[in-house]
Amino acid sequence: MIVRPHQHWFMRLFDWHGSVLSNIVFRLSLNLLMSLIAIFGYPWYSTFGIHLTTAPFSLVGVSIAIFLGFRNNASYARFLEARNLWGSLHITQRSLLRQIKSIRGISEEQIREFTGLQLAFCWCLKHRLRKTEVQTDLQRLLPARWHSAVLHHPLPTSQILLCLSEWLAQRRDEGLVSDIVWQSIDENLNQLSTILGGCDRIASTPIPFAYSLILHRTVYLFCTLLPFALVADLHLMTPLVSMFISYTFLSLEALAEELEHPFGTAPNHLPLDALCVNIERNLKAMNGDMPLPEPLRPDAHFNLT
Amino acid sequence: MIVRPHQHWFMRLFDWHGSVLSNIVFRLSLNLLMSLIAIFGYPWYSTFGIHLTTAPFSLVGVSIAIFLGFRNNASYARFLEARNLWGSLHITQRSLLRQIKSIRGISEEQIREFTGLQLAFCWCLKHRLRKTEVQTDLQRLLPARWHSAVLHHPLPTSQILLCLSEWLAQRRDEGLVSDIVWQSIDENLNQLSTILGGCDRIASTPIPFAYSLILHRTVYLFCTLLPFALVADLHLMTPLVSMFISYTFLSLEALAEELEHPFGTAPNHLPLDALCVNIERNLKAMNGDMPLPEPLRPDAHFNLT
Amino acid sequence: MIVRPHQHWFMRLFDWHGSVLSNIVFRLSLNLLMSLIAIFGYPWYSTFGIHLTTAPFSLVGVSIAIFLGFRNNASYARFLEARNLWGSLHITQRSLLRQIKSIRGISEEQIREFTGLQLAFCWCLKHRLRKTEVQTDLQRLLPARWHSAVLHHPLPTSQILLCLSEWLAQRRDEGLVSDIVWQSIDENLNQLSTILGGCDRIASTPIPFAYSLILHRTVYLFCTLLPFALVADLHLMTPLVSMFISYTFLSLEALAEELEHPFGTAPNHLPLDALCVNIERNLKAMNGDMPLPEPLRPDAHFNLT
Amino acid sequence: MIVRPHQHWFMRLFDWHGSVLSNIVFRLSLNLLMSLIAIFGYPWYSTFGIHLTTAPFSLVGVSIAIFLGFRNNASYARFLEARNLWGSLHITQRSLLRQIKSIRGISEEQIREFTGLQLAFCWCLKHRLRKTEVQTDLQRLLPARWHSAVLHHPLPTSQILLCLSEWLAQRRDEGLVSDIVWQSIDENLNQLSTILGGCDRIASTPIPFAYSLILHRTVYLFCTLLPFALVADLHLMTPLVSMFISYTFLSLEALAEELEHPFGTAPNHLPLDALCVNIERNLKAMNGDMPLPEPLRPDAHFNLT
Amino acid sequence: MIVRPHQHWFMRLFDWHGSVLSNIVFRLSLNLLMSLIAIFGYPWYSTFGIHLTTAPFSLVGVSIAIFLGFRNNASYARFLEARNLWGSLHITQRSLLRQIKSIRGISEEQIREFTGLQLAFCWCLKHRLRKTEVQTDLQRLLPARWHSAVLHHPLPTSQILLCLSEWLAQRRDEGLVSDIVWQSIDENLNQLSTILGGCDRIASTPIPFAYSLILHRTVYLFCTLLPFALVADLHLMTPLVSMFISYTFLSLEALAEELEHPFGTAPNHLPLDALCVNIERNLKAMNGDMPLPEPLRPDAHFNLT
Repeated sequence: MIVRPHQHWFMRLFDWHGSVLSNIVFRLSLNLLMSLIAIFGYPWYSTFGIHLTTAPFSLVGVSIAIFLGFRNNASYARFLEARNLWGSLHITQRSLLRQIKSIRGISEEQIREFTGLQLAFCWCLKHRLRKTEVQTDLQRLLPARWHSAVLHHPLPTSQILLCLSEWLAQRRDEGLVSDIVWQSIDENLNQLSTILGGCDRIASTPIPFAYSLILHRTVYLFCTLLPFALVADLHLMTPLVSMFISYTFLSLEALAEELEHPFGTAPNHLPLDALCVNIERNLKAMNGDMPLPEPLRPDAHFNLT
Repeated sequence: MIVRPHQHWFMRLFDWHGSVLSNIVFRLSLNLLMSLIAIFGYPWYSTFGIHLTTAPFSLVGVSIAIFLGFRNNASYARFLEARNLWGSLHITQRSLLRQIKSIRGISEEQIREFTGLQLAFCWCLKHRLRKTEVQTDLQRLLPARWHSAVLHHPLPTSQILLCLSEWLAQRRDEGLVSDIVWQSIDENLNQLSTILGGCDRIASTPIPFAYSLILHRTVYLFCTLLPFALVADLHLMTPLVSMFISYTFLSLEALAEELEHPFGTAPNHLPLDALCVNIERNLKAMNGDMPLPEPLRPDAHFNLT
Repeated sequence: MIVRPHQHWFMRLFDWHGSVLSNIVFRLSLNLLMSLIAIFGYPWYSTFGIHLTTAPFSLVGVSIAIFLGFRNNASYARFLEARNLWGSLHITQRSLLRQIKSIRGISEEQIREFTGLQLAFCWCLKHRLRKTEVQTDLQRLLPARWHSAVLHHPLPTSQILLCLSEWLAQRRDEGLVSDIVWQSIDENLNQLSTILGGCDRIASTPIPFAYSLILHRTVYLFCTLLPFALVADLHLMTPLVSMFISYTFLSLEALAEELEHPFGTAPNHLPLDALCVNIERNLKAMNGDMPLPEPLRPDAHFNLT
Repeated sequence: MIVRPHQHWFMRLFDWHGSVLSNIVFRLSLNLLMSLIAIFGYPWYSTFGIHLTTAPFSLVGVSIAIFLGFRNNASYARFLEARNLWGSLHITQRSLLRQIKSIRGISEEQIREFTGLQLAFCWCLKHRLRKTEVQTDLQRLLPARWHSAVLHHPLPTSQILLCLSEWLAQRRDEGLVSDIVWQSIDENLNQLSTILGGCDRIASTPIPFAYSLILHRTVYLFCTLLPFALVADLHLMTPLVSMFISYTFLSLEALAEELEHPFGTAPNHLPLDALCVNIERNLKAMNGDMPLPEPLRPDAHFNLT
Repeated sequence: MIVRPHQHWFMRLFDWHGSVLSNIVFRLSLNLLMSLIAIFGYPWYSTFGIHLTTAPFSLVGVSIAIFLGFRNNASYARFLEARNLWGSLHITQRSLLRQIKSIRGISEEQIREFTGLQLAFCWCLKHRLRKTEVQTDLQRLLPARWHSAVLHHPLPTSQILLCLSEWLAQRRDEGLVSDIVWQSIDENLNQLSTILGGCDRIASTPIPFAYSLILHRTVYLFCTLLPFALVADLHLMTPLVSMFISYTFLSLEALAEELEHPFGTAPNHLPLDALCVNIERNLKAMNGDMPLPEPLRPDAHFNLT
């Protein structure tokens, strides 16, 4: 995620980092090439009666804008839902720890064990979504008692949920947690299951492939043909206008594709590392585990992972 | 569902599988034919004062794009809701098993019986939605005790729900489950009923037929008349532009129609088989039933059923 | 609701039933008449300097398309919410009966009485929404004990809800239902109240009248003036293009008006009869009341009421 | 709210009442005046090289239509939420009374007292939202015991909620209501608090003022300049087309402004009086308090307040 | 938030305060400058064959309007969610206090202590969101007993939540609050956690930076080039039309940027101060703590902070 301090509107026009511009520079160059071909080829190919006009391109352009708007909506909704799920993860973990801490008779040690499981769940979910190596963080966070149950399990995130549930059942067996208090806490464990399932769903089910494909194609074909439609009217100004229109369409299409998979590490993806550290800070602060880990800061390009 | 590894933007332009292109190739050919008729017929029929211009087609084209955007939204919302319901099925089954496993005094055997009923529910729902033969999977998954109650019942999915409820009531009778724990588990059984009802609703209530019909007609009439409107301006370029515009409209209409019924087995439909296997893997892993069944892999065309 | 088996895309173009076409044939004829007036009157009235051009009509047409898209959204959302409420009715009734059946010590007779009240609630809600005669179905379904309380009551649907609540309170008095089980069942009774209230709201609060009126007028005025704007460019093709555009706008406006009131008996309305029979089938199957009533089938015009 | 019996489509075109037309007649006259100035001034001012064309107006018109669509959506969403909250008020009050009536040992007198508090809450909320005098209705509905606590309190609606809560606590003290039953009823009291808060939010937080302002201005400026852009092409037809386009934009803008504040008494506002009487009828029917108050009927202009 | 009394539609056209006009006056002046350059430069640069036409600008303008509509939607949704969260805060605090007050045996003193914690939570959240100094308000509101736990804590808002939870646990230890009543109150504490998490999410996760950037750029580039496209047709009218179109686009873009961060103190931001005072008034009125603090009034520019 790009976390930029507030910019003056004028400065923002020339911002380089954080746009998807860097990704589409090559494609815009292709467009420039097409414009030049159109300008220099026009006198020659128009003698064969081959020419394009802007009217049908206006129609197709507006249609593409409408469908692109739909795709942007769908991608952004995925991004937003992913962010909401991680927000809900923070909220649920805070509520869980608050509930546990309000029970009398549970030792500091046991609470720390529970918090360890909570944090392991968060980091494990992060690694699952980014398909990164999970063992290091598990070994760092997981209380020793649960090592054998979780490490090297094929589905560690789901397994940690089972451990949290087992921890709670043990407290119930000890008579510290009544059935009703168990019910309240159990609801939050169900909420963790919902968050895990929701993230999995976003990660495993992309927007139907044909949408991306149809739009990808029509946007590129449109941008490729555009200079030939503009050249009759605009002559030397063709590259400017053609690249302007192409920039709008190509960059929004590229951004929609980036936002569709919000769990990656590109500049517009969610900062899962920072979110995990935030949860860790909050839970540790609730346990009085000072000093807290430092919150992650954006790097020199205002990028927060 | 098409599960394609990430493609370079350039490669994606020429992707063949997974687009709905294969379905509309014939219709695009018709459009090409119309373009040729327009080009060769133009000198003749224009002598009768018959000609079409792009301006009104621009108006009708943008209007159709707006309405098609609405239809795409409605179809995609159905696809998304169906996916969410199946995600919720996974979540609820995991929560149910987690709750059952945290109860003391229930034998491994009984938990396995419960898991069998859970899995039978999932596969049975899949067969119900795809209208496929259900008995084989029922016999594979259903614990022997429940065979007589479910096999050959007219509404097996709803009946399995009743069996899960009965299993739970028996544990309550045995004194293993208190009223409050029953309440928490019962809420998840209600959730299963909600999922079943939601899937049934999507399968039985299509988007109002008149919407599909009106849009289907206007899109086709539009694409048929389009070459005649373009030919006066574009002459030899008519087929290119006409087929481009038609591709955008026809493919999006065809995709919207495919997504409207998300439980089928076409490339853009939901991979219910894979989702069922995923749930089976997760529940078995929670019970320690190793080795787990292999997750389904997409076939050579990146298709996951 | 029109339940059509899957049609080939080509056949669908010429489908007669189920479109709203039959309703707007007269209005399209008026449009044809206007086109003819435009064609034959043009040479005469243009001598007075009276002429219209397509450019402003393009602007107003696209604007109307945007507002019509909004109205379609609003109408479809009402249709969808109504369908969801009836889906939720099915789900809640199934959950209620499942909960009742899991209680030990309730006689078959009492369960049948409860189911009778449940079914009476569904059919009574249907008659309330369609403003049809309710007594016959009430007498068929209502257990004799409750006749005096419900028949001829000014608000029978709400009264049956009270009877379900009273039935449950009697079981609590008999000691069969603990407070906690009562709570779980009571939540589903609240859900029935929510469904009743939601349906009432849709039935009694239309989309603000001014929306319908403004759009109705602008669509009709637009379609009436359109031929005069097209005739200068299109001459003899005016009727074709004018009727095409008018068909798109008039049919979508007519459909939006039909969907706005989803509880009627027109082809695009909800099949409340079939939904009631479905619930009856499901509840009776759960009680083992064989043979089940037959599900309703669409008539020869694929219509399901 | 305008409650019109179903109209024939032709009759509806000439409906006078219930449109916002009456409100914008003056503004349309201004537009007519501008059109006349454009027609008669055109030969003169065009000699100075001052002229406008339709092309840029088409662009700005479509843009305004898109933004107006957004504003209509936002206003309609507020109207809908307000209606949903009042529907939820009816549902919650019905559920509350149903729950109270299923408790054994509460006297008829006490139930009537509770219903009195419920009704006082509804009418008090209505007066709060419409900023009308509340004391008369409070004195009519409020049971005598609670007069001193509520009358002349600065926040009577919130205070009645406290009284309902206190009534319930007294029943709990008397041993009639167990903790669990209290919990179920308390949830519905929280729901009343949610409804009160939701209505307050809609009433106190308009759509950001700048939206209304920007759109108001651009719509008016657009309509004012439009005749000058149309006159070159349309000459004598300018007033007709200009007033048509202006009618569409001005009336939708006026309607959006009306719907933004749904608690007023204009024709498109919510019929809070009728909704209050409906709740009163339902609660009294549940208590058997016959005869019920008559439901409100729309007046001669189909207006329901 | 701007709280303006109802204005006549004519007066509203010339409203100065509260529009974002003041912010974009400089940018509109730049546009005016561009228009003048276009007018005076046109005879010269057109001799080089450099000219722009309106057709491609119409296409790009409508596309930008569509994408800007999307951005406005996203920004407004954030504003709305933020307002809903603060509405929910009011509702939850009222429900919490109502629940606490219905418990027998809790002293007035203890209730006041609880209310103090509630108010401290609200003001502390406000300061957190606006990044303002929190200690003064904490010292004013926080009961002395909790000073050491909260003041100078790194995460005071989350800490106060823990204090509320601890206060409740102490009442449970004293035997005043049963497990079931604890459960009902605990649910509202979880709700506070949800509100805190939701506000944090809005404050810390902007709309993906690339969206703002792409739209910012295309809007400005569009407005800069626009005069050159209009000048050929409009000559002297170029500045008027160009500034009109630019005003629409620039002001909506500026407003969307303002609404994106709803917790600031600009005129279209949420009036957090007034909301906090409102909650304080309501809770104090429930405790009978007269006189109530005065509600905040908008300043001379109708601004409410």
